[in-house]
This record gives sequence, structure tokens and C-alpha cells, in this order.
Amino acid sequence: MVDAVLGIDIGGTFTKFGIVDKNGQCLKDNFINTDKYTDFDEFLDHLYKEIKDLIISFGQETNIMGVGIGAPNGNYYQGTIEHAPNLNWKGIVPFVEKFQKYFPNIPVVLTNDANAAAIGEMIYGGAKNMNNFLVITLGTGLGSGFVVGGNLAYGHDGFAGELGHVNFEQDGRMCGCGKKGCLETYVSATGIKRTLFKLLAERTEKSELRDICFNELTSKMISEAALKGDSIANEAFDITGKILGLKLADAVAITSPEAIFIVGGLAKAGELIFKPTRESMENNLFPVFRGKVKIMPSKLIDTNVAVLGASALAWKELSNHKK
Amino acid sequence: MVDAVLGIDIGGTFTKFGIVDKNGQCLKDNFINTDKYTDFDEFLDHLYKEIKDLIISFGQETNIMGVGIGAPNGNYYQGTIEHAPNLNWKGIVPFVEKFQKYFPNIPVVLTNDANAAAIGEMIYGGAKNMNNFLVITLGTGLGSGFVVGGNLAYGHDGFAGELGHVNFEQDGRMCGCGKKGCLETYVSATGIKRTLFKLLAERTEKSELRDICFNELTSKMISEAALKGDSIANEAFDITGKILGLKLADAVAITSPEAIFIVGGLAKAGELIFKPTRESMENNLFPVFRGKVKIMPSKLIDTNVAVLGASALAWKELSNHKK
Repeated sequence: MVDAVLGIDIGGTFTKFGIVDKNGQCLKDNFINTDKYTDFDEFLDHLYKEIKDLIISFGQETNIMGVGIGAPNGNYYQGTIEHAPNLNWKGIVPFVEKFQKYFPNIPVVLTNDANAAAIGEMIYGGAKNMNNFLVITLGTGLGSGFVVGGNLAYGHDGFAGELGHVNFEQDGRMCGCGKKGCLETYVSATGIKRTLFKLLAERTEKSELRDICFNELTSKMISEAALKGDSIANEAFDITGKILGLKLADAVAITSPEAIFIVGGLAKAGELIFKPTRESMENNLFPVFRGKVKIMPSKLIDTNVAVLGASALAWKELSNHKK
Repeated sequence: MVDAVLGIDIGGTFTKFGIVDKNGQCLKDNFINTDKYTDFDEFLDHLYKEIKDLIISFGQETNIMGVGIGAPNGNYYQGTIEHAPNLNWKGIVPFVEKFQKYFPNIPVVLTNDANAAAIGEMIYGGAKNMNNFLVITLGTGLGSGFVVGGNLAYGHDGFAGELGHVNFEQDGRMCGCGKKGCLETYVSATGIKRTLFKLLAERTEKSELRDICFNELTSKMISEAALKGDSIANEAFDITGKILGLKLADAVAITSPEAIFIVGGLAKAGELIFKPTRESMENNLFPVFRGKVKIMPSKLIDTNVAVLGASALAWKELSNHKK
């Protein structure tokens, strides 16, 4: 008999799910299309059927002890997905309440993707022995999960950890949230594209990226150009890291973490983004914190990091129950 | 027999101490001069002697269950005071280790003043039923204590909660910490003075404050002038509140508190500072937090707030021991 939990990662296009053991081994996994389902109940029915099939096809007798779900705009306290712009189901979706009916006797818990990534790092990854750290996810936007005193900070309403929406520049770039100047409009895969386009407008240096339109440009293309010595691409990384480092210094002043993990698409650019981020953070740190805070990539080496993170949420919940 | 703890507030000039019961009643208190003692051991000896005398003079039989100490640059984990600029004892002072010898069988705990204020609010004040809130102290500088998930955030090294030193303006005002543009150089009793002097330089409006030199000006004079309709003084408050609100919106995005308590000298200006702070915070909040976060003054109505805060730290420690 294998003790395991289910990890489920809800994305706008795919919902991925897997059976994960205590060591963070994803024993078996699969996915369904999220965007095919406009009806939420129909989606859940289908998801449950596929999970049952997955468990059967795994073959070994499995003791499913809990279910962890990572979802955009997920609220841990309420078990809801609230006003997620990239999902078909509008308003407040009572995910846990409805999904619990399929798993009546085990904990079913949900949080947002970045929080799940932080718990994944804590349970299986580079933060195993850390009580204070944060995880920054750099994808289309900027997500964050703060672990403070050994627990994920959910805050009063379950939505703590929105570092993507702290202010970087008053009356700055328009953000999808309706505000202006939010950090994620500068620091994310989309943010670095915007910075690059601003540089293309201001500068006259040649760049291979002058042949690519906004909608086709990816952060991967910017990092490839930078590695080939493209000066504008390199400057875009320097500016992005400088801004991230400045705001990380602020976050350190508030929560004093031992380490900051930077994960997600843009983090794959490696030292192109890590080096200017580290330098800028150190320059802006309150003196007592200088030289104390590590900035590093995720230690979760798996293609299914989001499923692992969601499963870690379930293990964390089970360990809280034991206390 | 009365159950009580000792609360001790170490300041640059005075060290205040009191016997405090579980309800936050300061039963008896006294003080000694801090700055008379260049030798730390001599200071401790004298402090202990005065505390013994205080207990005797209180008359009732008292069961002292713990000692809580609030001190500038106090480190909760280490029990040390580290590099406090306004104290005679330089470097790292092992306060708890040495003071514990006088009280061998009870918990002796120390933290910084703002953290002590936050615990005071949690144990006796307006945050009794809150698990997520923060306290901002506006004095000579800006201090902060963050309660996250029911516990004070000390962070990895014991120095979490330095909101006074997040960046407001790159290459901005010089700060005592060696950086530039720190929040407390704009938002504090000193910060509003600097803003007022900038306005006196830029504007031509008459103001009674044009007759007062920098070293004589106090934030109280600015609030008195503002209440009499002085337009420059009023604008100084508006600017200060606007900056504070902006940075509080960032802090909310990270920790999602239920309430923010603003205490200390500058908070006595009441709505002069609270109104622009509230408006600016709401304007800058990530939409999901809007209308949810209260900004309010301390509910600790006592002249000895710092001693109460320190005593609350001891009660909090005793309740942690029980768990």
C-alpha cells in the first residue's frame, strides 16, 4: 500500500493532476483541457472520472490521504477561486465545497499557484529546513508566496502575497488589475517585453529583436539575444533585475527571509536575471540584512512543478492536522 | 497572591518598568536614567535593585511570572540589543543572558519597541481577536510590528518589520541608516519636518512656521498650525499621509492585515494624518483588498504604553510555553 496525495494544478488551458508520494515523487500523472468546460460541475465530474482512471491505471494499491489544488486567484480560507480572469467560470467558484463531495473523508485544500510553489519548495525542495523564505514566480505575471515563522502567510482574507501588485512607479505602466505602475508590469515575462520595446523606441543600437513584433516576442527570445551579446536585450535584463532587487529589498525589510527562490519562465534566463537582481537587492537592503539573504532558483527539478506544489499543500495540511 | 509580569522599556534617556497584570493594568511603576550608566553591568545591577524595591513597595504578595523587555534594535531570537545608536553600550549587548541571572526560573524575553507595541495591541488593545494586523509607530523614526497568522513576524534573523527602511524614492532623502530615500525620512516626526521645510522653500504663502528654526520645530507645532488653517502645514500632513498610504498599500499586498494601528507622537495629530493616509492607501490597494483594511489609532489608553507592550511580550511568551 502506497501512501500518497493528489496534486491538481488548474490552469487556463490545462488542468494537470498527479499522484504524489511523501518524497515528492510524482508516481503517475495526466491532464484534461480546462477551457473545454464552460459548466463547472461538468468539469468537476470529468476531472474526478479521470482521476479515478489514473489511480486504477497506476496499478499499485494506493491510500489517497488528501487533495491539494493550486489555482489562479485561489483562496485558501474559503476554498474558492475568485474572479479568475483566465478561467471560463466567472465570479466566486466554491471549488473545495463541491470537490469535497467526491472525497468525503480526506482534506481537500486549495490555494493560489505561487503559494503552492512556496509550499512545494518547503516540503520537497530547497526550503526544507527554512522557516522564513519567499518564492517569486515570474511568468505572464509576478506571483509570490511568503512563508513566515514556518507557515504560509495567507493573511486576513486569504489573499496575502500579492507582490506583483506593489507599486513600483506612481502613474506608471497600466496593469491588468486596473492600477498603474504595479511591479508585475515591469518584472515578469510580459514586463521585460514592455521594457525591451521601450528601449527599442529610445535607442538606436541594432538588435535582432527589431524584426519581431510585440505579440510574437517572448522572454526566451530576449534571453537568447542577450546571450549572443545583443546590448538592448542585455539592458532589458539589467533594468528588470534592478527593479526586482529594489522591491525584494523592501520585502526583506518586512519579513526578513533566509532565502528568496525565483522560479518560472523568466527565471530560466539564469544569471541574466539573477545577477542584476542580487546586486540591486544588496544595494538597497537595510544594513542589518546585507549579505544574509540568498537569492536562488527552485530546487524542484521536475517538469510538473505546479502539480508537486499542489500536492505539497495536501501534505502540509495533513501535518497540521496531526499537531 | 497577584499573578503579574514585569514590563521594561529601555529608552535612550529613561528606562521605565512596571508590574503588569493579565488585564494590562500597570499596578506599580518607576523609572531610572539609562544614560547615567556607561557600564552595562552596573546598569543591570541598579535596575534589578530598583525592581526589587518596586515589588516590595507594591505591598501585595506578587507572583512575577515573566519579564518582557522592549528596546531599540532588540533581537528576540538572540535576546540582544545590537548597535543601538542612542544607547551608551556599543556593539552587541547580551541583555537577556545577563538579566536572566537575576530571574533564573522565569522567561525573560526582549524585542524591539515597535514589536512590543504590536504585542501590546494584541494582548490588551484593539487587536485582541486579530490574527493579522500591523502596528506603525511614528516617532523620531518609523517602526513597525507585523503580526502574521497570530504570531509576531520576527523573520530569519529576528529583525523583521523594518518598514521605516523600505524605499520610497530612489536617491531620495539621506537616512540615518546610510541609505537614501527610506520611508522614515518622509513619514515620521522628523520626516514631516523635512517636508515642511521643503515646502517653506518652494512656496511663498505666509506661515507662522517661517519664524521657527529647524532644530526647534516639532511635529506638534506643525499640527497646531494645520488646525489653525496654515496651508503649508496642512499640505505637509497631506503629503506625509499620501506617502504613508502608498507604502501601506504595498505592505497590505504582502501580508493582508485586517487592521493597521498607527501610534506614537505623530499619530496624535489624528485625522490630519489618518485621513490622507486612508485615502491614499485605498487608491493604491490591489482591488481585492479595497474597503477591507481598517486604519486606526491604538486602543491602549495609558501613559505607559511602552511598558505595557513589553509586559505583553512576557504574557505572550507564557502562553506560547503552555501550548
